[in-house]
Amino acid sequence: MTDKIHFDRIAIIGAGLIGSSVARAIGRAGAAGTLVVSDRDPAVLQEAREIGFADDFTPDAGEAARDADLVIIAVPVGAMAAVGEAIAPSLKEGAIVSDVGSVKEAVFKALDPVLPKHTHLIPGHPVAGTEQSGPKAGFASLFDGRWCIITPPDGVDKGALGKLTKLWEAMGSTVEIMTAPHHDLVLAITSHVPHLIAYNIVGTASDLEEVTRSEVIKYSAGGFRDFTRIAASDPTMWRDVFLNNKDAVLEMLGRFSEDLTALQRAIRWGDGDALHDLFSRTRDIRRRIIDAGQDEEAADFGRHHEE
Amino acid sequence: MTDKIHFDRIAIIGAGLIGSSVARAIGRAGAAGTLVVSDRDPAVLQEAREIGFADDFTPDAGEAARDADLVIIAVPVGAMAAVGEAIAPSLKEGAIVSDVGSVKEAVFKALDPVLPKHTHLIPGHPVAGTEQSGPKAGFASLFDGRWCIITPPDGVDKGALGKLTKLWEAMGSTVEIMTAPHHDLVLAITSHVPHLIAYNIVGTASDLEEVTRSEVIKYSAGGFRDFTRIAASDPTMWRDVFLNNKDAVLEMLGRFSEDLTALQRAIRWGDGDALHDLFSRTRDIRRRIIDAGQDEEAADFGRHHEE
Ligand SMILES: NC(=O)c1ccc[n+]([C@@H]2O[C@H](COP(=O)([O-])OP(=O)(O)OC[C@H]3O[C@@H](n4cnc5c(N)ncnc54)[C@H](OP(=O)(O)O)[C@@H]3O)[C@@H](O)[C@H]2O)c1
Ligand SMILES: NC(=O)c1ccc[n+]([C@@H]2O[C@H](COP(=O)([O-])OP(=O)(O)OC[C@H]3O[C@@H](n4cnc5c(N)ncnc54)[C@H](OP(=O)(O)O)[C@@H]3O)[C@@H](O)[C@H]2O)c1
Repeated sequence: MTDKIHFDRIAIIGAGLIGSSVARAIGRAGAAGTLVVSDRDPAVLQEAREIGFADDFTPDAGEAARDADLVIIAVPVGAMAAVGEAIAPSLKEGAIVSDVGSVKEAVFKALDPVLPKHTHLIPGHPVAGTEQSGPKAGFASLFDGRWCIITPPDGVDKGALGKLTKLWEAMGSTVEIMTAPHHDLVLAITSHVPHLIAYNIVGTASDLEEVTRSEVIKYSAGGFRDFTRIAASDPTMWRDVFLNNKDAVLEMLGRFSEDLTALQRAIRWGDGDALHDLFSRTRDIRRRIIDAGQDEEAADFGRHHEE
Repeated sequence: MTDKIHFDRIAIIGAGLIGSSVARAIGRAGAAGTLVVSDRDPAVLQEAREIGFADDFTPDAGEAARDADLVIIAVPVGAMAAVGEAIAPSLKEGAIVSDVGSVKEAVFKALDPVLPKHTHLIPGHPVAGTEQSGPKAGFASLFDGRWCIITPPDGVDKGALGKLTKLWEAMGSTVEIMTAPHHDLVLAITSHVPHLIAYNIVGTASDLEEVTRSEVIKYSAGGFRDFTRIAASDPTMWRDVFLNNKDAVLEMLGRFSEDLTALQRAIRWGDGDALHDLFSRTRDIRRRIIDAGQDEEAADFGRHHEE
């Protein structure tokens, strides 16, 4: 028998979509003696308590972190430093502090200075989510078959890293280790810029004079509605992502715009071959994502259709 | 009892996703005495015959159109003129000719000169589809609850327009009448530009040096995979859309790029309020699309998750 990962006490700070999903997945894995959840929002905390995905619920992050072997911070990236400060005084020697933030270098820089030296800071990011927020939106299987990227700092404690890795595996993920700057570059193209252009097209469409908003809504099934789903994601979380991954996002956005200008030119000059070439190349990537188990094959995102 | 719409003979030219769905929906509605389907691709025609969604199958578009009361052309926009020429000699007096192309002004200009004066050309466009192609991908309920835009020319025969409208209603759609240029502008923003930016981001992501293609695939669940679905749509169909709706697409693309530049600037200067404002506005549009019945509420496009 492989030894099952176990922490005597795990604290999760932030009970939203991701925090509540982590709590449920840890519960499903039976990986914590005591699981404590904290959130600053009383309504969120009350919802969490009613759903009951932890042993204890408290508005006080410091109290939740007291005596914890592992603390996972699941708040927007811009709130990480404040949470770090709140939990620092009560962290015990050897405690592991991790997070789920969508940006990794900025989170390390926010937390490293405020946490005591006798703790192990090991940032992480599960690449999984939906456009919804809050504890009701979470579910235990969110991380199944998805990647969790861990970005350990230089000189990380190997034992602590091993335990955190095993926990994410117990939650259904496969763990990949990389540096924080590389993570931020990869996610800029696979997540941050896609969200930005989705927000942008929805903004452009709402501001037209010749086409009314009600026409945009009526005829959204032509493709637009899929962008609105992505652009319905939490504004605070995404504001923080862009403010905290500025360089990588601007770099990838620059390339995107360059490529779009070339496409625009191909349309203007009627270069059908250039268009057809690109449109054929992109199909292959889709195929490989389905083969890699990162999406379903079903047409139209598997939206329900009767035959 | 309302009188049920009925045509003695309907011909559908092109047996792909849309043509085969139209055939199935007409079959479901029992709206044709005889339904004939034609496709130039022998393999497609064979598949269509095996599925059996029509009474007759022929490789010869002219033969299919002979004596038809209604011909619906369901081929890529760039192939409309060729099909028009092929069916022209066999069209009977008073026959209605329509289509399902994603662009309307160019289709009218392609078909109007080649069709006999004794026929009624009334272009149409069902705003419904998936990223898949071919007769196997079609289904009868594709048009249920979706809009079908009809763009009748000046001086259209009212009787013919009424019959075509009733047919689309019998196929499950709600019909909207507008001019072809207005259609092309509306669809540029709700469908064509969204597809273009999806193709573009997938292209950009495949061409990076610092981030490998396998990383792009592994971490695609962060948002990117949704764009690959859209960018897996048929290359020929989409090339034809962009070549034939150049002005409206370039106009909308210009606005998109302008807005994206403003967002880029907000990120560069750390203007969190501007980002948060936009990201909050876009949520409302999503809400209205769901309320209008044009998308499902389920998170993550309703992708299957176990609890
Ligand atoms: N959503 C995704 O798809 C996804 C995927 C992977 C990673 N992530 C990352 O996961 C983190 C959480 O995102 P989420 O989607 O779970 O957000 P969420 O559903 O909005 O939940 C965040 C929760 O944290 C609370 N919070 C904020 N500041 C706090 C503080 N200083 N102390 C205690 N609680 C605080 C929020 O309360 P208030 O409402 O009062 O602010 C809210 O209840 C973010 O860093 C995000 O980048 C998200
Ligand atoms: N896909 C969507 O979501 C969607 C939605 C609304 C409207 N539309 C419009 O519907 C039309 C058809 O699209 P689709 O998605 O059904 O495409 P599709 O699945 O690729 O099918 C098109 C069929 O037309 C055949 N064809 C091409 N040229 C022909 C010709 N000259 N004579 C006879 N058959 C010919 C093709 O054969 P070959 O393979 O040999 O070319 C193919 O079998 C397009 O105008 C498109 O703009 C599409």
